[in-house]
Amino acid sequence: MDVAHGDPRPAAGPSDACRTRVVLGIVGDKWSLLVVRNLRNGPRRFTELKKAIDGISQRMLTVTLRSLERDGILTRTVHNVMPPHVSYELTEMGITLREATAPLLEWSIAHLARIDDARATYDARTDTPVAS
Amino acid sequence: MDVAHGDPRPAAGPSDACRTRVVLGIVGDKWSLLVVRNLRNGPRRFTELKKAIDGISQRMLTVTLRSLERDGILTRTVHNVMPPHVSYELTEMGITLREATAPLLEWSIAHLARIDDARATYDARTDTPVAS
Repeated sequence: MDVAHGDPRPAAGPSDACRTRVVLGIVGDKWSLLVVRNLRNGPRRFTELKKAIDGISQRMLTVTLRSLERDGILTRTVHNVMPPHVSYELTEMGITLREATAPLLEWSIAHLARIDDARATYDARTDTPVAS
Repeated sequence: MDVAHGDPRPAAGPSDACRTRVVLGIVGDKWSLLVVRNLRNGPRRFTELKKAIDGISQRMLTVTLRSLERDGILTRTVHNVMPPHVSYELTEMGITLREATAPLLEWSIAHLARIDDARATYDARTDTPVAS
């Protein structure tokens, strides 16, 4: 692995660069971004998250929630009521993450049409469209 | 696929939710985030990006650059000099994306230590650490 030769930033050595990449592998992931966003109004049950996040599989939601719990982004609470259920809630650190990801989510929503246009232009110009 | 029943936001219907997910699949990806970040000071050559982004493979960098070019985030320029080379530069839209991702990158760097602590606590509590 190369260290960050081309990075003019004086801070963060190669070790921090590598660790940043690992952290981004968790929090900079579309499912993580969407889970964190859907917890913005307080605790949610697993089934509520499953319904709210278009296209996520049961397994992917389970894996994503476990990673975010491990990273200290959310807490998992088992409610021993009838019927029993599990809920998820952002930690204090999770709330700051949600704030940090909000601009990226807003950007994605605001630029949907321009990205569609760019893709159509690119695909018309090349014979080999990139799988999206 | 379920529509976003649990989402109290009145805007964006299921179609937009699905398209947002597709866009996040491209821009909300650790390699895309790192490529965009490394173009913040102007055009960079392929080899400069490869050196600057710790751990990225030649193939993953190629795929990431092509996706970002297709989405209108960056432009690719072939320089017919000796030796010939290719450079990449953020478009106007790419610059706004970089601004939108900056808080998430800063958050990741700022919270490295707390996430490490949370992982250690979680792994000590459970017998089955999550692969990171």
